Amino acid sequence: MSGRAHPEVGDEELSPADISSRQQTSCVHKVGVPPKQNLFNEFMYTFKETFFHDDPLRHFKDQSVSKKLMLGVQSVFPVFEWGRNYNLKMFRGDLIAGLTIASLCIPQDIGYAKLAGLDPKYGLYSSFVPPLIYACMGSSKDIAIGPVAVVSLLLGTLLRTEIDPNTNPNEYLRLAFTSTFFAGVTQAALGFFRLGFLIDFLSHAAVVGFMGGAAITIALQQLKGFLGIKKFTKKTDIVSVLHSVISSAHHGWNWQTILISASFLIFLLISKFIGKKNKKLFWIPAIAPLVSVIISTFFVYITRADKKGVQIVKHLDKGLNPSSLRLIYFSGEYLLKGFRIGVVSGMVALTEAVAIGRTFAAMKGYQIDGNKEMVALGAMNVIGSMTSCYVSTGSFSRSAVNFMAGCQTAVSNIIMSIVVLLTLLFLTPLFKYTPNAILAAIIINAVIPLIDVNAAVLIFKIDKLDFFACMGAFFGVIFVSVEIGLLIAVGISFAKILLQVTRPRTAILGKIPNTSVYRNINQYPEATRVPGILTIRVDSAIYFSNSNYVRERIQRWLTDEEEMLKAQILPRIQFLIIEMSPVTDIDTSGIHALEDLYKSLQKRDIELVLANPGPLVIDKLHVSHFADMLGYDKIFLTVAEAVDSCCPRLYDEV
Amino acid sequence: MSGRAHPEVGDEELSPADISSRQQTSCVHKVGVPPKQNLFNEFMYTFKETFFHDDPLRHFKDQSVSKKLMLGVQSVFPVFEWGRNYNLKMFRGDLIAGLTIASLCIPQDIGYAKLAGLDPKYGLYSSFVPPLIYACMGSSKDIAIGPVAVVSLLLGTLLRTEIDPNTNPNEYLRLAFTSTFFAGVTQAALGFFRLGFLIDFLSHAAVVGFMGGAAITIALQQLKGFLGIKKFTKKTDIVSVLHSVISSAHHGWNWQTILISASFLIFLLISKFIGKKNKKLFWIPAIAPLVSVIISTFFVYITRADKKGVQIVKHLDKGLNPSSLRLIYFSGEYLLKGFRIGVVSGMVALTEAVAIGRTFAAMKGYQIDGNKEMVALGAMNVIGSMTSCYVSTGSFSRSAVNFMAGCQTAVSNIIMSIVVLLTLLFLTPLFKYTPNAILAAIIINAVIPLIDVNAAVLIFKIDKLDFFACMGAFFGVIFVSVEIGLLIAVGISFAKILLQVTRPRTAILGKIPNTSVYRNINQYPEATRVPGILTIRVDSAIYFSNSNYVRERIQRWLTDEEEMLKAQILPRIQFLIIEMSPVTDIDTSGIHALEDLYKSLQKRDIELVLANPGPLVIDKLHVSHFADMLGYDKIFLTVAEAVDSCCPRLYDEV
Repeated sequence: MSGRAHPEVGDEELSPADISSRQQTSCVHKVGVPPKQNLFNEFMYTFKETFFHDDPLRHFKDQSVSKKLMLGVQSVFPVFEWGRNYNLKMFRGDLIAGLTIASLCIPQDIGYAKLAGLDPKYGLYSSFVPPLIYACMGSSKDIAIGPVAVVSLLLGTLLRTEIDPNTNPNEYLRLAFTSTFFAGVTQAALGFFRLGFLIDFLSHAAVVGFMGGAAITIALQQLKGFLGIKKFTKKTDIVSVLHSVISSAHHGWNWQTILISASFLIFLLISKFIGKKNKKLFWIPAIAPLVSVIISTFFVYITRADKKGVQIVKHLDKGLNPSSLRLIYFSGEYLLKGFRIGVVSGMVALTEAVAIGRTFAAMKGYQIDGNKEMVALGAMNVIGSMTSCYVSTGSFSRSAVNFMAGCQTAVSNIIMSIVVLLTLLFLTPLFKYTPNAILAAIIINAVIPLIDVNAAVLIFKIDKLDFFACMGAFFGVIFVSVEIGLLIAVGISFAKILLQVTRPRTAILGKIPNTSVYRNINQYPEATRVPGILTIRVDSAIYFSNSNYVRERIQRWLTDEEEMLKAQILPRIQFLIIEMSPVTDIDTSGIHALEDLYKSLQKRDIELVLANPGPLVIDKLHVSHFADMLGYDKIFLTVAEAVDSCCPRLYDEV
Repeated sequence: MSGRAHPEVGDEELSPADISSRQQTSCVHKVGVPPKQNLFNEFMYTFKETFFHDDPLRHFKDQSVSKKLMLGVQSVFPVFEWGRNYNLKMFRGDLIAGLTIASLCIPQDIGYAKLAGLDPKYGLYSSFVPPLIYACMGSSKDIAIGPVAVVSLLLGTLLRTEIDPNTNPNEYLRLAFTSTFFAGVTQAALGFFRLGFLIDFLSHAAVVGFMGGAAITIALQQLKGFLGIKKFTKKTDIVSVLHSVISSAHHGWNWQTILISASFLIFLLISKFIGKKNKKLFWIPAIAPLVSVIISTFFVYITRADKKGVQIVKHLDKGLNPSSLRLIYFSGEYLLKGFRIGVVSGMVALTEAVAIGRTFAAMKGYQIDGNKEMVALGAMNVIGSMTSCYVSTGSFSRSAVNFMAGCQTAVSNIIMSIVVLLTLLFLTPLFKYTPNAILAAIIINAVIPLIDVNAAVLIFKIDKLDFFACMGAFFGVIFVSVEIGLLIAVGISFAKILLQVTRPRTAILGKIPNTSVYRNINQYPEATRVPGILTIRVDSAIYFSNSNYVRERIQRWLTDEEEMLKAQILPRIQFLIIEMSPVTDIDTSGIHALEDLYKSLQKRDIELVLANPGPLVIDKLHVSHFADMLGYDKIFLTVAEAVDSCCPRLYDEV
């Protein structure tokens, strides 16, 4: 493919006669009019740029059928691509990374499953099957797959609004698998239909706020295990939780539990601090949770602290994931509910996984295909829902550890999966005396990095409206619920888009001394304006959503200017030059707005002049006959040429 | 007010030392960094541009309190402003125009009320009170107020989905007034809270399609009266209506009715043709409907054709609008339904009125204030709902007649209102023998111009996606219902906005010979590219909704280019210049995308260079430290300067 800007401009040459006939003043440069394209090509171009901008089939061009088939298999299962160059050195990296993330994931999984309102074993199940599927289908080398805190909390909250897990544990479990199934279907469908860009509508700022709020909510939920409280509120908002904590302070707290959780939390935080100070010691915070679990379990077993009110895991089923295909609701009232919950949690899980994938790909300098990634994540959750797993995705904390431990490929996920398999087969009885307090401490320690104060400060500095979205999501989550926080985040993100398209910026331009360059006079205070000429730049495509605003705003610039000139007894404005460079497109409403502007300027005896309309714009000005109405001699390549052509006529009149 | 571009740039001068310290290369021009503004000013600027971009309080500045009070009254009731300069000559114009539109509105009102499922008298009521209110509060000089076909049809359709007018006429009427009340409240609220831009989201193209579809639906509905069919479907879609018409062809049609309606429709069409041929004879089509009503009524009265199956109006109450305040549902289940119907019909009515207001204001060269206009329309409908009127708005056809008849001010509406008053007081008995057939003919004749084929053709030529929205709305209305058509129109309009913000255009730039101007190489095939340098222009603000796309698209341009260069054994790309002129703003996600791009280019040994970032962008690049990371010596005022600085280093390496 050649590096052409718009395929609507084909190979046929533009006839110079065609241009010059339209262009009266011969001394200035011509504004190019791209040759017309037929409807089909135009449509195909827009379609391609919208859904296939990354040209996913480029590798298939000019290949034999067998080669195409192989490329097809490789594109669905990238393992066949990177697997062929896999070697022992890579395996060493993957083995260390896999063991490290396995030690991190096992205690986390048990805690996260509780957050989702499920038995601990489902957390381990979800760290066994999905990572295997992902390793075959995913394109990220660094992501660590499994249950994550935020999605577990969100899924748990959404499920609990439908079914109470204490009274109907079976229905609850079935709805969880149904939601997981539809989360996977949603993810795969978004990828397959190349609608991955939909997740971009959840802005970075909104995600930062949402994650921070969810982290605090999760940490607050852990106070139950941390303090050993038995009666705890089912709500997740900060007011209910703190009320629940404080009201149980007198007789509900268990000092033995607090002793265990507090001391191990301090241990975890210190190990994290050590890992931060010296990057080579990254493995200390990575294995600290498992070490804590082992020590605390041993301690409880020895002291029989469980008899003194320290709550323990008690029972963890031995054995591999049972099939759960028949547990999924494919009909009935829960089908729709499962679908709704699945779509929401699937989208949030996707946002997290894609963000992680992109971050680490940029660090290592490789590309990941967002849409292919979504298909992989979707397939993994669909299969997961049939093998007793709940929604899995990429974990921020474990992926970072994976990266630092030197993972080379997705094989580290396979190693982790094997360790989880061995745990499920042989080690689950050992977790019997593990105190819930240690799980609470591990989760609190794990979610702290999600509260990204630096990112929030940067957002505040860069964009105030972004910060507003961030804080809206944050406070929505902690004061109301994860659902409301998410809604606020999406709502503000959309409002920002609408603001962007309805209120584009405009600027007055001036000439930068000793150049022929015209720039915003506020950015360049040294830029000077030509008396009698007002140059305005419109900073957006002119569409129905902003055409009236643009017209009214230009008229207001003009009115303001004329009032000022009148006050200073200066010559009046005779020419209005609109710099159209940023106006990438225009629609029918935009043309009408220009016509209205032209008519009202005629009434005020001001000439309208356009500078540098782009290919789409000049084409549409031509088709709509506005260019004829205005005159092709009023359309220039640059502002400088437009000003040069206005000036002589200007002095004649003054 | 001075003509400054962005108030965030205050009066303080930018220190030259500040700039030059950031700028390493002294021979090129500096990229201006606007001074920082405090948060409050920044917020106020955005708020003002969003909601008060027309600076509605500008006249109040530097005025005494009494003057401010007077200006305040004048701004709510513009009648006090233009009324002071009103003279006899203007009155002559208004009198003729008022009488003309009155003769047009009386038969239309009777027909439109039936379209809304109401008694004919409510149509006349709605042409009495609302025009009077509008004349005091409105700012358009040309709009003719009253019931209109499309809104009547929409209101009727929406009301009928809730209540059957035949079985529960009282509840139906009460819901109609409730909806009118909330339509008015919606309109006034949109204006008062300066949210008028929301109606801009219904694009011109969608309105053209919706109006055309509604016109055909209305004309089809008239076949009942036109053919004298007694049993007629209650659905509005074309399939149901034609089925109803054809199945009643054998014994349901009434030849006397058809004779009347067909002959008068021909008369109306001929008179319209005459009016079009000779603009001075505009009054012929304007009074033709009333003449038809008089002649046909007289004819039926003489021949007693009503005994032969010709349906007649039968009874029209004498007397003025009764109060309907107590009929409005302010509680109960119909409150919410009335609210919903009111919001939809109020928005559609607003779209029509504002479009008319703007069109005629542009023709005569005056400004109308959209938000003030909405308050006036809202107040008129609120008061109307309390005086037995249903939703009124500006009528396209009558406003055009008003304009051609030489109206000068809103006094023509007062004249029309007085004529309707006299009709209600004295003339209603005369309508007893008016055949329904003639009303059908008048409505068919009135809605034909709403099918704007030329506009649709122009839309097709200018923008294919707009045409798709237009056709979607059109077919949605005629094959399903007005509601669905409206939904499709709004849906496609929104999809277009999302497309615009997620898939901005990018272009490769080349140097136009003998200039220092760089332009899109597809629009200007003569533009040449500098070997070793790739210049890409990004045509939009870089926000979260498109940041990933922009980064990936730039990387694809680069990959395409490198593949091509490799194939031709040409020197590789060493510099990537991004022309940022159209990039008016950037958010946190955009900065992250640039950082990711920078990192991946570093891996490929390509230098990233920026040209002409705008004031907001350079500020954010600075705040986020991306500018430090990139180096201030890589940011240039123009592409030409960027290329000049790259070239020497380029040849060193080659």
